[in-house]
Amino acid sequence: MTSHFEKVTEISLKRAIIYPDAEMHGQMSGFFDYGSVGSEIKRRWENAWREHFLSLNQNFHEIQTTIVMPEQVFKASGHLEHFHDPVAVCSKCGVSERADHLLEEFLGEKFEGLTVQELNALMKKHKIVCTKCKAPFKEIEDKSLMFPLQVGASEDKTIGYLRPETAQGPYASFKREFRANRQKLPLGLAIIGKAFRNEISPRQFVFRTREFTQAELQVFFDPKELPEVPFHEVKDYELIVLPVGAKDAKKVKCSKAVKELGMSEFFVYFMAKMQQFIESMGLPGKFRFAQLSDEEKAFYNKYHWDLEVFCPSFGKFVEVAGFHYRTDHDLGGHAAVSKENLNIPGKDYVPHVLELSFGVDRNVFAVLDNAFREESDRTYFALPQAVAPWDAGVYPLVNRESMPEKALEVFKALRESGIKAFYDASGTIGKRYARADEVGVPFGITIDGDTLKDGTVTVRHRDSKEQERVSAAQLPERLCELAATPQGKL
Amino acid sequence: MTSHFEKVTEISLKRAIIYPDAEMHGQMSGFFDYGSVGSEIKRRWENAWREHFLSLNQNFHEIQTTIVMPEQVFKASGHLEHFHDPVAVCSKCGVSERADHLLEEFLGEKFEGLTVQELNALMKKHKIVCTKCKAPFKEIEDKSLMFPLQVGASEDKTIGYLRPETAQGPYASFKREFRANRQKLPLGLAIIGKAFRNEISPRQFVFRTREFTQAELQVFFDPKELPEVPFHEVKDYELIVLPVGAKDAKKVKCSKAVKELGMSEFFVYFMAKMQQFIESMGLPGKFRFAQLSDEEKAFYNKYHWDLEVFCPSFGKFVEVAGFHYRTDHDLGGHAAVSKENLNIPGKDYVPHVLELSFGVDRNVFAVLDNAFREESDRTYFALPQAVAPWDAGVYPLVNRESMPEKALEVFKALRESGIKAFYDASGTIGKRYARADEVGVPFGITIDGDTLKDGTVTVRHRDSKEQERVSAAQLPERLCELAATPQGKL
Repeated sequence: MTSHFEKVTEISLKRAIIYPDAEMHGQMSGFFDYGSVGSEIKRRWENAWREHFLSLNQNFHEIQTTIVMPEQVFKASGHLEHFHDPVAVCSKCGVSERADHLLEEFLGEKFEGLTVQELNALMKKHKIVCTKCKAPFKEIEDKSLMFPLQVGASEDKTIGYLRPETAQGPYASFKREFRANRQKLPLGLAIIGKAFRNEISPRQFVFRTREFTQAELQVFFDPKELPEVPFHEVKDYELIVLPVGAKDAKKVKCSKAVKELGMSEFFVYFMAKMQQFIESMGLPGKFRFAQLSDEEKAFYNKYHWDLEVFCPSFGKFVEVAGFHYRTDHDLGGHAAVSKENLNIPGKDYVPHVLELSFGVDRNVFAVLDNAFREESDRTYFALPQAVAPWDAGVYPLVNRESMPEKALEVFKALRESGIKAFYDASGTIGKRYARADEVGVPFGITIDGDTLKDGTVTVRHRDSKEQERVSAAQLPERLCELAATPQGKL
Repeated sequence: MTSHFEKVTEISLKRAIIYPDAEMHGQMSGFFDYGSVGSEIKRRWENAWREHFLSLNQNFHEIQTTIVMPEQVFKASGHLEHFHDPVAVCSKCGVSERADHLLEEFLGEKFEGLTVQELNALMKKHKIVCTKCKAPFKEIEDKSLMFPLQVGASEDKTIGYLRPETAQGPYASFKREFRANRQKLPLGLAIIGKAFRNEISPRQFVFRTREFTQAELQVFFDPKELPEVPFHEVKDYELIVLPVGAKDAKKVKCSKAVKELGMSEFFVYFMAKMQQFIESMGLPGKFRFAQLSDEEKAFYNKYHWDLEVFCPSFGKFVEVAGFHYRTDHDLGGHAAVSKENLNIPGKDYVPHVLELSFGVDRNVFAVLDNAFREESDRTYFALPQAVAPWDAGVYPLVNRESMPEKALEVFKALRESGIKAFYDASGTIGKRYARADEVGVPFGITIDGDTLKDGTVTVRHRDSKEQERVSAAQLPERLCELAATPQGKL
């Protein structure tokens, strides 16, 4: 039987959504391309993220900093010292595995955060051998996840690194942006961009890759004068949370979360905004904020919640975003290494940072995975319109009686109204519907004999397959009206 | 006297348009960030490019392929063998310079394309020494511009490279996209994304950097059945061309260019579309297509024209885009190295490639540089609205008499109409206008005493400083109307 995961990835390859990079050359593992359909879905997801998070405060801005950054940045951030994973290399075939993942697979427990010594002891105790050739592994060693680069020619070359997260850009640019934006706090700096990690064993499609896209917002604020937020907007909104030690996730209203989770309104507000965004992506209530324990979370994080979504492909909840109150760790580190004074003017401390971090690839996959539907005669992605690759397909029923001309007119009128449509006249109308359904296009507009008589067209709804007649002149308006329904917006 | 270049870059730094990456850590040369203002200008430029070029044909699509690509790709493309520059290293202080640029500075002639032997001979003949320490240079050597990376752990690691151009993505993905898009030609695959070159001496602000953004469209077509294009749209449009051997650029109508430049309508059409795009960016007619001679152009290019724009900062024409008919070089190379058959179905040859290549950073800078205006009491960027960082600023005249509340209402209404506005209530109204002018915001909307009486607001025009009264209810409509003027569109 073909699994949910196989079905989704097969369509992804066939219809140019996501596929491995440079396949024809026998590609490197952990690198994926977004194709002609997937690139639109991803871009629209990013636009929705941008609109949602950057409209929260007038002093939240997007910036685009470089991917290659100098060594000093990663001294300041701690990545050079701390950013590594334990690797187990087979003594015979040379295959590499992440030691903690290997143990997790064999023993069914989590081993993240153990030392190399502890992992080596466990490997020996449980006699873990290579799954491929049954030979024992060499001693486990820590391996850096950073990609170093030699920048410049010969004598004057320096060492740079591909950024392993977008976050360091806003920290390294903080001083200039703070000044350019009139030294006001809170200041939000967001980046939507690529990051790179030399993962030991990339796996789970786009869930653990070596090149990936992040959408991260760093909010800089004065910890002694927490910024005001319009908390009334969310006070009755229910967070779904799984606190440390709890067995099951539970719903808690934001107004109660302040006391129950022991966090100020400022923090609860941003948790709510994160959850509302995930919700708007058509995910069927199957998400939760999972709190990390003191052993699991980075030492500098005062609060650390993973936002997890249930993915049918994996049969479990997977992390797609994170809520991190990083305190003064970042600006403190950059100030110490660079000797720049990054204090809040008139204060003797640096701004604190709240980070809202989203893995774009994981989110896009989680949306597709949850939107996948199978019926006897078709499959489709029940995508919210905000992330559908097109808003509508426009089809002449047949290629005669001036239907194509009329259809092209309708197509053009839609494009001019800002509706993303495509025109398709190839094959039977049934095949064209199926083709559009397969990639999640919400509406099909058909021009038929009646159109030529009375000027109406058929609007076919992807999910219900229901059809309605609409006057061509009112079509853009009608589609915008439909867009305001829970399916999403144009 | 402060030069044009110094004025533009100073504002760029001060107002968070473009600034060096990781300045606080003493950054590496050749890496620039787009700040909170510049990132908007760049993003809007990219959106305009996307809209212009991807609407030319329904089978033109955007894709996003990886930045790190495997070694085989660059064997196929020829980059590993051919992509290097001659470097001269000072025997005493170790400074590195590009040998041909060094000779050009000393002798005032162009030396691109000479061999290492020829360059060494010229260096000795003219006794070129280091400008810093006057010591002689070591022998010139070719240095690769590629950034290699070790991917994976220990024994199973492979070599990848940061792409030096986005173009290889569409070539390596051609087979999958061709199949997913019903094997139709022409097929256009565009990428807007980062590329990396280990330049020996980065210079001229964002004109020669090590990390940069390209917007490139690769059009795959059958050379024996050139695709039809709507040539009538451009037949009377005048190209500005500087053919090889000509002293001055001249205007030539597209209908005549076919014969005069010896190129089919298919090619002339795309040259026109490139020039029209540059024109729409508010560049004051100071552009030209400069043809490259056989010595200058890559051996595989059948046609090669640089699109150049005059930049006041440099006092000369600079290359911002290229028109390259690359024949079968690319798919031929990838087919040979991968042993995949990339032939057009039923034919014994691979599709040919026409590449429209834009350097995004260069274009953004050229737009800013040409838009810079200086008056006795202010400076401003006369940016077309399409690339202005915001469409409008909304200002209460004073912070009392409920003007701020009314202004926030207007601000909200504009945002809901899809107009990108900001709200600003800090400082005198004159300072607020000046601040918005400085980064090129086309309209200022002021809410004053009359607004509270009769519901009208003042619309101030950036370039003329002229003001008009408009009813607040009609404001979004009026701004859209103004946007249809040559200033650009919302």
